Amino acid sequence: MIAEIIAIGSEMLTPFRQDTNSLFLTERLNEVGISVAFKTVVGDNLEHLTSAARTAIGRVDLTVLMGGLGPTQDDLTREAVAAALSIELKRDNDLVTELYKRFAERRLQMPENNAQQCDVLQGAVVLRNSKGTAPGQWLEMEFEGKPRMIALLPGPPHELHTMWDMEIMPRLREKAPRAAFAGRVLKVAMMGESAVDLRAAPIYKKYPNIETTVLAAQGQVELHLRATAATPEDAQAEADRLAGELEDELGDAVFSSHGESLEEIVSYYLQMRNMKLAVAESCTGGMVAERITSVAGSSRSFLGGVVVYSNDLKTLFADIPPLMLEAHGAVSREVALALADNIRELCNADIGVGVTGIAGPGGGTEEKPVGLVFVAVSNGHKNDVVQRRFFGDRERVRRWASQQALDMVRKMLM
Amino acid sequence: MIAEIIAIGSEMLTPFRQDTNSLFLTERLNEVGISVAFKTVVGDNLEHLTSAARTAIGRVDLTVLMGGLGPTQDDLTREAVAAALSIELKRDNDLVTELYKRFAERRLQMPENNAQQCDVLQGAVVLRNSKGTAPGQWLEMEFEGKPRMIALLPGPPHELHTMWDMEIMPRLREKAPRAAFAGRVLKVAMMGESAVDLRAAPIYKKYPNIETTVLAAQGQVELHLRATAATPEDAQAEADRLAGELEDELGDAVFSSHGESLEEIVSYYLQMRNMKLAVAESCTGGMVAERITSVAGSSRSFLGGVVVYSNDLKTLFADIPPLMLEAHGAVSREVALALADNIRELCNADIGVGVTGIAGPGGGTEEKPVGLVFVAVSNGHKNDVVQRRFFGDRERVRRWASQQALDMVRKMLM
Repeated sequence: MIAEIIAIGSEMLTPFRQDTNSLFLTERLNEVGISVAFKTVVGDNLEHLTSAARTAIGRVDLTVLMGGLGPTQDDLTREAVAAALSIELKRDNDLVTELYKRFAERRLQMPENNAQQCDVLQGAVVLRNSKGTAPGQWLEMEFEGKPRMIALLPGPPHELHTMWDMEIMPRLREKAPRAAFAGRVLKVAMMGESAVDLRAAPIYKKYPNIETTVLAAQGQVELHLRATAATPEDAQAEADRLAGELEDELGDAVFSSHGESLEEIVSYYLQMRNMKLAVAESCTGGMVAERITSVAGSSRSFLGGVVVYSNDLKTLFADIPPLMLEAHGAVSREVALALADNIRELCNADIGVGVTGIAGPGGGTEEKPVGLVFVAVSNGHKNDVVQRRFFGDRERVRRWASQQALDMVRKMLM
Repeated sequence: MIAEIIAIGSEMLTPFRQDTNSLFLTERLNEVGISVAFKTVVGDNLEHLTSAARTAIGRVDLTVLMGGLGPTQDDLTREAVAAALSIELKRDNDLVTELYKRFAERRLQMPENNAQQCDVLQGAVVLRNSKGTAPGQWLEMEFEGKPRMIALLPGPPHELHTMWDMEIMPRLREKAPRAAFAGRVLKVAMMGESAVDLRAAPIYKKYPNIETTVLAAQGQVELHLRATAATPEDAQAEADRLAGELEDELGDAVFSSHGESLEEIVSYYLQMRNMKLAVAESCTGGMVAERITSVAGSSRSFLGGVVVYSNDLKTLFADIPPLMLEAHGAVSREVALALADNIRELCNADIGVGVTGIAGPGGGTEEKPVGLVFVAVSNGHKNDVVQRRFFGDRERVRRWASQQALDMVRKMLM
């Protein structure tokens, strides 16, 4: 069974934006044994959109259209699919009423143009959108003598993901072929891609039924394993066996054995050990705190911290002596350690983190170049501080530095 | 004149890889006045590739195919285009000889399969590849009575870019219409997409030569304007005229008139007014500070702040009286205001920001539900505090709350 994903929106035909939703959808489709044969991006243009819809419906079993379901005049997906199939659109008055209610609950008046979101393709099932106003649609029909499935879904990722998992996946599981898939995702911190692959490749090559993909991001290498077998249990057992071998080889550089993010792992370990964390950040400017607090329930183990961008604040909030700043500079091993140790004591935390560095693009010197970062972790008995030089732009340096900090907390908790 | 870009390669139909070449090509095509109407990704499959080629050649003036020109059995682009057009491929013996030489120069024996790279579409011009072995091809012909241009180009970015600039651009400059393009991007804070469009649409519809795209993100609506005219100056003047009218209509809800991000604008205003900012965040957990410090040079106007997740830290770092926390709760108008006011004073800043709320998914009550957020701004003479209820998951609530905070700082600076 093959699918085509059509991403709709003129912004994705500019040099500035890309469709990324299709990556999520591809993963989910592969899970139920459906391959993606085509991906198309088309603008908010009725003629083009109709052409794209007709072409897709003609050549694949499942056509997924994302976007163009909103209330504006640019939102043409419903109309285009109706034109491609030569069928009617009918306004669903119950849906209109619901939409009015939704606005009323928020004490807002519904703008008139919202009603077009309730135009439904003849024969289609309406898919409720729990995260937004635009409903989706699901249509099964014959086209040129062949059975076809068509999904119209909203473009905003959080709306799309929820609707996909709630409404589309159960329908596809019923239709999809019987071959079973199972996966595992291992994540490795602070190692290069080729260094990881050099050790991992001899192992994963022994498993021809498992597709292994190596992906690198800032300070993180991911190993995606996808096993195929007769039953889901067999596939999972295979994937688990390879994952186990890889973990043995890579040791504690593997921070995640089921795809969790580094911040989730740190939050989890902290809660397990009933320990509290506090942070004092300079160059990362709140990124370490932001990443930790992105995890639901992190308030149970994260107390908070300080963003001490200026030297005065380093002294005011983290008790860094002005003399230390003068003697060693704000970007130094000594200040990183003092930030970690002081914030721990001040906040009455179990573990403290200190980060100081030069994120760039300005502010670098011969002695202290852009990308130089000191990260320290302290638990009162033991301190650890590392000096690193990260390459790339401001965002990249900050991201690597926050990754280094979280990974050091993880190792201290192990 | 419109184009379709077809990226060829099965790896781009996995959840892990994306075509990015098309962003480069789009920029170059726009320069010569050609719009991209469709982008397609297709795997190394002769039937699918032929379908994609035929569809594209049928609907656009210029079809650009990238990839699938190499020596392996997976490289099917030449064959597919020949099949789509029902024309012949002919092996170019001069090319074969050149290829042999190229290998010989590197003291390598040419593997037999390399010769298929010299199969040329009937009527096509061969494009030399100075960075690799696979030559490109350029074909001008009639298809279904219409003049068509077709380019077959290598997939590796450095080969593609060079061949594009050396071989394709000069040809397109000759063919392309004389029209010129120019754009503007306006961004609006804290308004819904349909509310913006209701006011903007009557204005941008008066400009038929300007393509207007409305994009919504969390707490942000973007209006992308792209004007077409005889000269770049005329196009820019048109775009500027529409942008001016839209700004008049939307007033100070427009925070960016040339595509800048909200954090860039806030940073810019602060530096212009020579003012210093400090923040005290609870539910956003450092996101406001992280966003501001993502802007290069923000250290000139951002002092820092505190992430006061626990009540103890609210008292320790932001002088929030325990009695106030008890009386009103941490998520309250009073605490938000005190956070803003106290952090400003403590840090000796000109403007202070306080954010407190319930990001969810846990922690909500009937009286104080998930998504309830108080944001306050203070400059010592004037305070402003708003109560908002944001919908969606933890990430979304936090993102909206940070957007609200930055927008209030912007308004205070205006």
